[in-house]
Amino acid sequence: VIAIADTIAVRVYYEDTDAAGIVYHANYLKYAERGRSDMLRSLGIGPRQLREETGVDFAVRRCTIEYLAAARLDDMLSVETRLEKFGVASLDIAHTIARDGEPLARLAILVACIGTDGRARRLPARLRAALAQVSQDPPTIVQKTP
Amino acid sequence: VIAIADTIAVRVYYEDTDAAGIVYHANYLKYAERGRSDMLRSLGIGPRQLREETGVDFAVRRCTIEYLAAARLDDMLSVETRLEKFGVASLDIAHTIARDGEPLARLAILVACIGTDGRARRLPARLRAALAQVSQDPPTIVQKTP
Amino acid sequence: VIAIADTIAVRVYYEDTDAAGIVYHANYLKYAERGRSDMLRSLGIGPRQLREETGVDFAVRRCTIEYLAAARLDDMLSVETRLEKFGVASLDIAHTIARDGEPLARLAILVACIGTDGRARRLPARLRAALAQVSQDPPTIVQKTP
Amino acid sequence: VIAIADTIAVRVYYEDTDAAGIVYHANYLKYAERGRSDMLRSLGIGPRQLREETGVDFAVRRCTIEYLAAARLDDMLSVETRLEKFGVASLDIAHTIARDGEPLARLAILVACIGTDGRARRLPARLRAALAQVSQDPPTIVQKTP
Repeated sequence: VIAIADTIAVRVYYEDTDAAGIVYHANYLKYAERGRSDMLRSLGIGPRQLREETGVDFAVRRCTIEYLAAARLDDMLSVETRLEKFGVASLDIAHTIARDGEPLARLAILVACIGTDGRARRLPARLRAALAQVSQDPPTIVQKTP
Repeated sequence: VIAIADTIAVRVYYEDTDAAGIVYHANYLKYAERGRSDMLRSLGIGPRQLREETGVDFAVRRCTIEYLAAARLDDMLSVETRLEKFGVASLDIAHTIARDGEPLARLAILVACIGTDGRARRLPARLRAALAQVSQDPPTIVQKTP
Repeated sequence: VIAIADTIAVRVYYEDTDAAGIVYHANYLKYAERGRSDMLRSLGIGPRQLREETGVDFAVRRCTIEYLAAARLDDMLSVETRLEKFGVASLDIAHTIARDGEPLARLAILVACIGTDGRARRLPARLRAALAQVSQDPPTIVQKTP
Repeated sequence: VIAIADTIAVRVYYEDTDAAGIVYHANYLKYAERGRSDMLRSLGIGPRQLREETGVDFAVRRCTIEYLAAARLDDMLSVETRLEKFGVASLDIAHTIARDGEPLARLAILVACIGTDGRARRLPARLRAALAQVSQDPPTIVQKTP
């Protein structure tokens, strides 16, 4: 069981909205990617380090989004990123984008490691180690709750 | 059975790409929306007319994307938009984004009519009429298949 | 003399970059607009309030940008927003976008108040009052420096 | 005297607009860049070829935009790109974005050649040759007009 979850705050600016007065639907994917990037960074290996030190990028392979309610100009949103599982070359990630606790969008995203040639690569050893580390911790945490 | 399908051409510019050298994943949703907008226009009721004449917008409710291969700078892509079915207040649309006949991404999108208050609305009568018109033509095609 | 200046922090994500590996040039305008929006908010009247309570938006009328050096993926940037002067219906704003104190881009922007019909409007009284308030303070500050 | 000018057509989609109901100001720079890219392509050396065959990109060094009127959802715009002059390592380009002959925005842009290290480079010989070719042609054209 993996239970890594991070939450970031995202402000909605004009750049995010469209003529219908709401956040343009594609931009929720940007918010989610900000959350994933920050989670990687919190594990000690941000997207640029990943590129420059290991020669890989994460590419989105599959994405499902449910839109529940619309975000609007100036809203302050929370973007939760949960690593649900990781494989040899990919990560399953879930995001919930919410405003004042009300979920506005839910995303399920499969990202895969690719090399500069676009082909699949194994997760870099350093990232796997960081993920294995955090995935072993949750039991300890669970035991804390009597 | 509905069988409305339109295909538009989309050029990839720098604005569409990211530091991994490929089209940023969220931008395929923009390409798909260009295809949907142009299909509406070909039915005689573009997005702005829809807004101004009937007071509704189409909002994306659910979206599933599969990414098969990456598009790159300067690529000329085709974006196919197929209306799969329509309900009282929503449309099911499938898109295939391809390069030289090779599919790069497949999208399944549910769009719903909303009013300026964000609440669901019935499809405007004029649009329903246009859709009913084109959906009555396919039976001829279906009869071809014994 | 007006001397209102705010600085916000902006992280560079994949969405901001392009295939040249740097932040896409148009995106510096987005960063600047985030800074302007936050400055308005700090004056007690954010962009959405402005829209909903006074029926006006700020529209950019003129913009000059000098690009000095490129921002890259994962960079943490500072976006400084300085209100240089304000007129009956417009604001002159200067932005400096920097990384670790090194300026990357300088922007001079003229924004004007427009109504929902797109025509010029006077600055809302409430905003003028807030601006007049802060523009009267600097002399005091200047006198502090012997 | 150089007189290379190309015009492309650009449709305004939801992705381009913002909550004020008009095209977001930064997006005019995207339209202009589409025009520049297509002009390079018409000279036989598109942005990707430039990257892959000569190792350089064009980076925007300075940009001045005047916004005259707003573009709206579904508008069909024309983007004119005029190469005003070229130096050893840079191009001066002017763009006019118009709707039905009415100019909406005027841009003056200085782009410079940079290597993958971000440093200035001379224009690739092949591009200089293409530019010299077209810049020698105008006199002939002028003589055609009695």
